Amino acid sequence: MEKEKILILTDDYAEDLELLYPYYRMIEAGYDVVMASDAGGRGLKGKNGVPYKSDVSWEDIDAAEFVGLLIPGGWAPDKLRRYDKVKAIVKEINDAGKPIGIICHAGWVTISAGIMKGRKATSTPAIKDDMENAGCTWVNEEVVVDGNLVSSRAPMDLPAYMKAFIKALEE
Amino acid sequence: MEKEKILILTDDYAEDLELLYPYYRMIEAGYDVVMASDAGGRGLKGKNGVPYKSDVSWEDIDAAEFVGLLIPGGWAPDKLRRYDKVKAIVKEINDAGKPIGIICHAGWVTISAGIMKGRKATSTPAIKDDMENAGCTWVNEEVVVDGNLVSSRAPMDLPAYMKAFIKALEE
Amino acid sequence: MEKEKILILTDDYAEDLELLYPYYRMIEAGYDVVMASDAGGRGLKGKNGVPYKSDVSWEDIDAAEFVGLLIPGGWAPDKLRRYDKVKAIVKEINDAGKPIGIICHAGWVTISAGIMKGRKATSTPAIKDDMENAGCTWVNEEVVVDGNLVSSRAPMDLPAYMKAFIKALEE
Amino acid sequence: MEKEKILILTDDYAEDLELLYPYYRMIEAGYDVVMASDAGGRGLKGKNGVPYKSDVSWEDIDAAEFVGLLIPGGWAPDKLRRYDKVKAIVKEINDAGKPIGIICHAGWVTISAGIMKGRKATSTPAIKDDMENAGCTWVNEEVVVDGNLVSSRAPMDLPAYMKAFIKALEE
Amino acid sequence: MEKEKILILTDDYAEDLELLYPYYRMIEAGYDVVMASDAGGRGLKGKNGVPYKSDVSWEDIDAAEFVGLLIPGGWAPDKLRRYDKVKAIVKEINDAGKPIGIICHAGWVTISAGIMKGRKATSTPAIKDDMENAGCTWVNEEVVVDGNLVSSRAPMDLPAYMKAFIKALEE
Amino acid sequence: MEKEKILILTDDYAEDLELLYPYYRMIEAGYDVVMASDAGGRGLKGKNGVPYKSDVSWEDIDAAEFVGLLIPGGWAPDKLRRYDKVKAIVKEINDAGKPIGIICHAGWVTISAGIMKGRKATSTPAIKDDMENAGCTWVNEEVVVDGNLVSSRAPMDLPAYMKAFIKALEE
Repeated sequence: MEKEKILILTDDYAEDLELLYPYYRMIEAGYDVVMASDAGGRGLKGKNGVPYKSDVSWEDIDAAEFVGLLIPGGWAPDKLRRYDKVKAIVKEINDAGKPIGIICHAGWVTISAGIMKGRKATSTPAIKDDMENAGCTWVNEEVVVDGNLVSSRAPMDLPAYMKAFIKALEE
Repeated sequence: MEKEKILILTDDYAEDLELLYPYYRMIEAGYDVVMASDAGGRGLKGKNGVPYKSDVSWEDIDAAEFVGLLIPGGWAPDKLRRYDKVKAIVKEINDAGKPIGIICHAGWVTISAGIMKGRKATSTPAIKDDMENAGCTWVNEEVVVDGNLVSSRAPMDLPAYMKAFIKALEE
Repeated sequence: MEKEKILILTDDYAEDLELLYPYYRMIEAGYDVVMASDAGGRGLKGKNGVPYKSDVSWEDIDAAEFVGLLIPGGWAPDKLRRYDKVKAIVKEINDAGKPIGIICHAGWVTISAGIMKGRKATSTPAIKDDMENAGCTWVNEEVVVDGNLVSSRAPMDLPAYMKAFIKALEE
Repeated sequence: MEKEKILILTDDYAEDLELLYPYYRMIEAGYDVVMASDAGGRGLKGKNGVPYKSDVSWEDIDAAEFVGLLIPGGWAPDKLRRYDKVKAIVKEINDAGKPIGIICHAGWVTISAGIMKGRKATSTPAIKDDMENAGCTWVNEEVVVDGNLVSSRAPMDLPAYMKAFIKALEE
Repeated sequence: MEKEKILILTDDYAEDLELLYPYYRMIEAGYDVVMASDAGGRGLKGKNGVPYKSDVSWEDIDAAEFVGLLIPGGWAPDKLRRYDKVKAIVKEINDAGKPIGIICHAGWVTISAGIMKGRKATSTPAIKDDMENAGCTWVNEEVVVDGNLVSSRAPMDLPAYMKAFIKALEE
Repeated sequence: MEKEKILILTDDYAEDLELLYPYYRMIEAGYDVVMASDAGGRGLKGKNGVPYKSDVSWEDIDAAEFVGLLIPGGWAPDKLRRYDKVKAIVKEINDAGKPIGIICHAGWVTISAGIMKGRKATSTPAIKDDMENAGCTWVNEEVVVDGNLVSSRAPMDLPAYMKAFIKALEE
């Protein structure tokens, strides 16, 4: 039986652990995890220096193939939100009601994808104002689950974040 | 005769040139420039590695003493917007109608200070959505002057940005 | 009810993910994880640059309090194996039959603690000869469980490694 | 009407601000600024880490096209002075009586171009002896103007340096 | 008359001085020194950052041409010991009774080449257990000469190490 | 019998090998080598990143105790030549006719100490003009010996440089 697929959207300067803990954790949970950036197979570097490689370009992604989406924090979201294809993927996965996990600064990407209106979520306090201006109710909790949207604040929340995201996938 | 004073609000990881070109340019234009960060005299480092020192803590600043305010881009604005005192200073200087210059990501700070509603401005395209969600009209021009607010997009706009900011101070 | 405690022994230049994936994973699994280095609260840096802090000095550790031990790879093991206290802790936890997890170069520490004779284990291929000379049977598998000893080869094995280690703790 | 052209000669490890403040300042003053290094379009890095690109190779430069020349400090001058073409350009622009600006360690280049005999100038104190041995009178002032030669000591002198250089161009 | 040839086997992250002091010292002593890595002419970097280039790939080496072999410490040995060709070269030079110099962590390479059984040697204390498990008698001295094997512990031992290695070559 | 003493004058950013090859080589030749910087015991870093420590401040040095002096290249000489005490030490050792070794950019220090007039020497080609302007005859050879002055051009000359310097000490 083929494994279900999880998509990670990333770029240079993702917060290293917010990218790679979910990456390995989803594999451990039995998923086939695909890391997409602007160019397939490109060498990337985390904000603190950890090197990794994307598997594929997001241009070549069919969002319908995935059962869930994860976006790391750090400075990668500041880049990700500039791409039309990234925003289209986020919107399509959200419209399908599939779980989307955002942590730390990842909310910038869902803001630009236009899916935050009327949602309840958390994030790094740094982007609280951007989250609220985008129409969402911001709360300061380690993990917030609102329908298909799972959000957390920082690396220290990774355990709660992953527990909630896996639960969302299984429902 | 004493020189008029310009305030720069900054932190680690400001875009080096967006911080230091205005710094030296204001001195050249005859102003007394004060660089404030969270702690006075603290060594800071630009996003690309240029070291500099803040003159004073913003806690010890009286906004009324300054005739204008400049905020650099880079990642410093992501930190600056978290401080109540920073937001209070920005608001006070704006309420007094004194020139405020924002470049690149600096708009995050004016968003959090709550002064962007109904304004016309530019910024790095990365934060266009945050700017619009904060209630401002975003345009893609090298420099935009709307009342006391002077805004630019990136280092390549520094010459037009400084020309407009100096003109705003002189009016 | 108090959580059971897991000990991580580390130093500068641990392989970042081999240290921090297990760290957050054990928290997610419900354990209280204590990271010990030569000095409590010391700032450390991973081999690729991720910063972290140890909770406590291993000099202040009572091995009897812990239900399991994890040692990361990278260059930290080359330092860890030089400390008598580190070797004593490893030996005591092994003598008690509690799960010990070693990944990549971490085998150097268990070699120096004198607990590898007659064991079956894996590691980075780089230290295969040291493992065999220490009296163990080396196999090239993603994870090897031999009694209380759980071993893996590299970051790509982290999912299998953690699954096996958690199972060992629960038995 | 076409803009007048200013030439900047540089290499890796120029003092970042001594290169880039004059670069943007000349554009602000209405000039077309051309940055030349050993190879056109080459990526270069400042002494403190700021990245920039040269526009053209100095091999392809016609010195007669420029109305002025600027040379930054840092370690770039130690490289620049080794090139015959660099020295020829400096000499030709000096012979034409056009303004030449040198700051910090840039005097090494004008020394090697053989144009310092009988001049009055300043520089970083570090190369005072080299300046004097080359036949010039060294003074410790923020900016010295001697005919077409404008010289300064360090980044803190940038405002006075640019004011004097622009004045020299306009005369 | 042609010079006698010395081989150095290295890789990235050799301890800079343990690689380059012997390199220049052997040239000073009148030898033709050949630095071999996995690829000829490849740019390499020492553990502390010193750049150097290998002369040739070890794949193209005929061990019979050399009168002696030197292996630096640092992290390069952890890589070197994984290559069959490296181990074959070490073994061939040892079988011919020609001097082999190992310093710091270089013993890992001779362990993997299988030539340490019954030898007396020193090394960084970090790998003492690996050395003993490989069958050698480990002593804590600045330099140990046992037949054709010359060993030292650390950079501070370089003077004694080179004196002994040159003596071994001359005998 | 007490060893004769050699002085090395250095600062941050010395060319790593030009500092440390002579340091270990002089120890190997039987001398007691003292490394002096602006502050005793201060941690310093070479131009390429090798860390080292000075033994003593040059303020506490009695030049009469030393039989010879070595100055490395890199950027350290640009700093060294600014100190009166450094220049006084160089002058005193030169007046006593004791061997002085300069390599690469080290000539800047002897220029500022005022001892180059009428001498024959070499250096990195970068400072040829400064050397000649200081009154010395510059030649392009791997090592030049003129009375007590031994000079070389670059790291590749270290073997010839040290051979000549040791010979000068023994005469």
